[in-house]
Amino acid sequence: MTHPHPELSSPPALPQDGLRVVALGGLGEIGRNMTVFEFGGRLLIVDCGVLFPEEEQPGIDLILPDFDYIRDRLDDVEAVVLTHGHEDHIGGVPFLLRERPDIPLVGSRLTLALIEAKLTEHRIRPVTIGVAEGDRRPFGPFDLEFLSVNHSIPDALAVAVRTPAGLVLHTGDFKMDQLPLDGRLTDLGGFARLGAEGIDLLMADSTNAEVPGFVTSEREIGPVIDEVFRTADGRIIVACFASHIHRVQQVLDAANDSGRKVCFVGRSMVRNMGVARELGYLKVPEGILIEQRQIDDLPPDRLVLVCTGSQGEPMSALSRMANRDHQIRITDRDTVMLASSLIPGNETAVNRVINGLTRWGARVVHKGNALVHVSGHAAAGELLYVLNLTRPSNYMPIHGEWRHLKANARLAELTGVPAENIVLAEDGLVVDLVGGQASIVGAVQAGYVYVDGLSVGEITETSLKDRRILGEEGFVSIVVGVDAASGKLVAGPEIHARGAGIPDEDFDEVMNRIETVLREAAADGVNEPAQLGQLIRRTVGRWVNENYRRRPMIVPVVVEV
Amino acid sequence: MTHPHPELSSPPALPQDGLRVVALGGLGEIGRNMTVFEFGGRLLIVDCGVLFPEEEQPGIDLILPDFDYIRDRLDDVEAVVLTHGHEDHIGGVPFLLRERPDIPLVGSRLTLALIEAKLTEHRIRPVTIGVAEGDRRPFGPFDLEFLSVNHSIPDALAVAVRTPAGLVLHTGDFKMDQLPLDGRLTDLGGFARLGAEGIDLLMADSTNAEVPGFVTSEREIGPVIDEVFRTADGRIIVACFASHIHRVQQVLDAANDSGRKVCFVGRSMVRNMGVARELGYLKVPEGILIEQRQIDDLPPDRLVLVCTGSQGEPMSALSRMANRDHQIRITDRDTVMLASSLIPGNETAVNRVINGLTRWGARVVHKGNALVHVSGHAAAGELLYVLNLTRPSNYMPIHGEWRHLKANARLAELTGVPAENIVLAEDGLVVDLVGGQASIVGAVQAGYVYVDGLSVGEITETSLKDRRILGEEGFVSIVVGVDAASGKLVAGPEIHARGAGIPDEDFDEVMNRIETVLREAAADGVNEPAQLGQLIRRTVGRWVNENYRRRPMIVPVVVEV
Repeated sequence: MTHPHPELSSPPALPQDGLRVVALGGLGEIGRNMTVFEFGGRLLIVDCGVLFPEEEQPGIDLILPDFDYIRDRLDDVEAVVLTHGHEDHIGGVPFLLRERPDIPLVGSRLTLALIEAKLTEHRIRPVTIGVAEGDRRPFGPFDLEFLSVNHSIPDALAVAVRTPAGLVLHTGDFKMDQLPLDGRLTDLGGFARLGAEGIDLLMADSTNAEVPGFVTSEREIGPVIDEVFRTADGRIIVACFASHIHRVQQVLDAANDSGRKVCFVGRSMVRNMGVARELGYLKVPEGILIEQRQIDDLPPDRLVLVCTGSQGEPMSALSRMANRDHQIRITDRDTVMLASSLIPGNETAVNRVINGLTRWGARVVHKGNALVHVSGHAAAGELLYVLNLTRPSNYMPIHGEWRHLKANARLAELTGVPAENIVLAEDGLVVDLVGGQASIVGAVQAGYVYVDGLSVGEITETSLKDRRILGEEGFVSIVVGVDAASGKLVAGPEIHARGAGIPDEDFDEVMNRIETVLREAAADGVNEPAQLGQLIRRTVGRWVNENYRRRPMIVPVVVEV
Repeated sequence: MTHPHPELSSPPALPQDGLRVVALGGLGEIGRNMTVFEFGGRLLIVDCGVLFPEEEQPGIDLILPDFDYIRDRLDDVEAVVLTHGHEDHIGGVPFLLRERPDIPLVGSRLTLALIEAKLTEHRIRPVTIGVAEGDRRPFGPFDLEFLSVNHSIPDALAVAVRTPAGLVLHTGDFKMDQLPLDGRLTDLGGFARLGAEGIDLLMADSTNAEVPGFVTSEREIGPVIDEVFRTADGRIIVACFASHIHRVQQVLDAANDSGRKVCFVGRSMVRNMGVARELGYLKVPEGILIEQRQIDDLPPDRLVLVCTGSQGEPMSALSRMANRDHQIRITDRDTVMLASSLIPGNETAVNRVINGLTRWGARVVHKGNALVHVSGHAAAGELLYVLNLTRPSNYMPIHGEWRHLKANARLAELTGVPAENIVLAEDGLVVDLVGGQASIVGAVQAGYVYVDGLSVGEITETSLKDRRILGEEGFVSIVVGVDAASGKLVAGPEIHARGAGIPDEDFDEVMNRIETVLREAAADGVNEPAQLGQLIRRTVGRWVNENYRRRPMIVPVVVEV
């Protein structure tokens, strides 16, 4: 097990009998999962997701994989296999299809329904090919077999990829709930069969590889939901992911048992539950749903609201309720259930929501005080089952940050996979499977592509650095008009500061300094705007640092008149 | 138990036999703890701490309590009692003493030594009065008694405040480790004695009120430290708080047992351990300490580094090691122990450090995978002991966010404190204890006072809002020179954008629009710079929104020439 060398260069040509595997996302991060397989000059993509930005990426809406590696070869792409319908697996598809709209999308019924709903918003009508567990079909040189896995969304698939280079099993996101609500088990028997056939490379979900033991069954949340419904004497507000159909099913069932009506709040919740209901994944008891405008017609103890916002998203209905900035006003008779995980990075926002709701008197039931969430990802104990059943020749941890990938690699070592057959890769590293041995042979470009408003890929690291400085320190802009010939000051200085925390009247002091500096420059024959700008920047920067110990962005503008 | 009404107004005059209690910080937040007691026209302050900023407060160094409530009455202050030496209890003292330097500081030996070291950096020599557990002494009308409590720093005190209005017990921060490393127990016997005397108001630490059960003893971390020392075959790097003397003691002892030398890294660690050693709170085995420059003289397996940075602070040595931006280069033989809590809000930063260290091959032992930290705050089980022993007439949860205060209030209700005697207050609410009944009677100003660089209180919410916009969206500045009389454009437009993610060449398009708008304005006789600025702002704002769906700050500058 070796650590990749960041100085790796372009990979050599792929041998004719070799399979190339390049993750453009998902290795070293939780999100934007995307893996490109190559054999015989043809490409197969598994997943094409987005990553959500952290505070280090201010103002960014989404982060995409960099398609540069395949941009000139889009015509070689046989298909995009979507393992399930979560954003971190399908969210990048609209952006990929902008580049070639007729790439076939391959997935299960629910997955395709969710991506189609999303693509409709982007005005794209995709080519889709529905598959189900047990199906086996070729896409060019890639002979694919699909296996059922369970996860926190129904209808998820693992995919086996057979080429003359060998057999690869890609688990997608999975766990092994042995009593799943829909009875659809992860196909361990299928995994074992593939293991007996001989898996040359196993690529397995690392998200929970650090967590010992086993993930509790989804149905264990039932008693907590029941307790909430039994004891709440006012409204019940449940916040969860808009894709968590089984969780919503449990809430619908509890509401039905207790004679409460249910209202879905929020666009994505309404849309996804509509899709799930239509396809039969969500069973909605007759007459239980009401529209938002009917809420006030019912007494609070006959009402359940199901909304998003469990991650503290500031514009969500739940955050606005916590801030008393929503038509639904929280009272001390309300019970709010945050029935979801807490995605790393969202802790502060969620804490703010819990405090806000508590302040208005609500009882808040959340991950910290009740079993209201179980993870969708196999914990270490489950991964060991998979490793022991499949006995892969080579192992490649996928879907995780470094800590998770490495923990997953350790599990493989413990079950006897030789260290030299464990590929600890990161985004953009090129892994070739040749003659039964997987190894890192080079690297390709795989940086972040930022989506901000309508632009894709135009926001650079420099823009983000500027934003970070502006966000921490603000700016001071100094405008002067100078005579083009002499460089003499003829208008200004006008000084504008925003976010710098310097009162306007303070600037009188530095005005004189600027005038002096410009007078001296003119006397020395300096009249180049760029040079004059430098002088102003230095003068003002020094003054701010001396007087305020701060470093706002200094923006001199020299206008020649 | 009623929720406070935000519309509360100024409090009525305090009755002559009444005690007034106003928290200027610490209620509704974890940090900047400060409580002002008033009796007979005299004031007593307990603690004066800082709060560390969250991402909502970009660029801010510290947040202080607002001293406005006492600013005109500083001469009435008898003393500031400091319950222990953590920043959230003493960090505001230098700023308070700037306003009146001779307010006596009352505290235990270690607490005073730590605040004195801090004040030396601020060039302030304070008036100090050392006290110890068991001491009882009057400060004006306030008859104070000090009781030992244990916490995550040695020498912490609770304080009982007796006035003719009754007996108040303020716990400070505390827990009840029954096997503390220094043998210094929380004085439950003293609490019981005060309870028998009759406690009119108990003010108790809420930080862990949501956590069921009991905090594990500090010494339970010992086996984990031992395991790390037994199995590490290279360097051991321990990151913890610079104030956690007992934790460092355990590391020193383990190093001594295994024949390793120890180097303290970082200014605050070196300073605090020097103070603790001098006063006898830290026992340093003979010859075990080395200087940083001696590190390279020792083989890695004879070395322990003790540093700060356990919260992922970006400039700390540990963060820089994780980024390969430090002379100490992490290898796969290193073991790094993050022996501290994870303060809410720091999750992302700490995760980044763990991933960075893991990436370079280090084994990282942290709260998520080993018992390397125990909290310093009493959990619910311990609070129940205190409530049952003291049987207070009135109860006021302190030190916590809303969720913690409310959980603490519930514990009081469970032990039989009547709901109407539980005061659920927040910062600035005025609580009067009159005739044995505590109640909220009004509110005073208690907002955030921001420290940024050298300025205190000059950064306003408006500056922060500007920073948030600038940080998310950047700015576009448009400079034009116009003829003062006609309003006609004579120079520019010059457009500068930073952080807006708009390529410079794109601006050509909007230049024409600006010129057109200004030409039309001049034709209409508009020549006021403010009006012209508005026109430019609107034109550019609309153009950016149409083309990029973004909202950068638009800064027009109209210079009359």
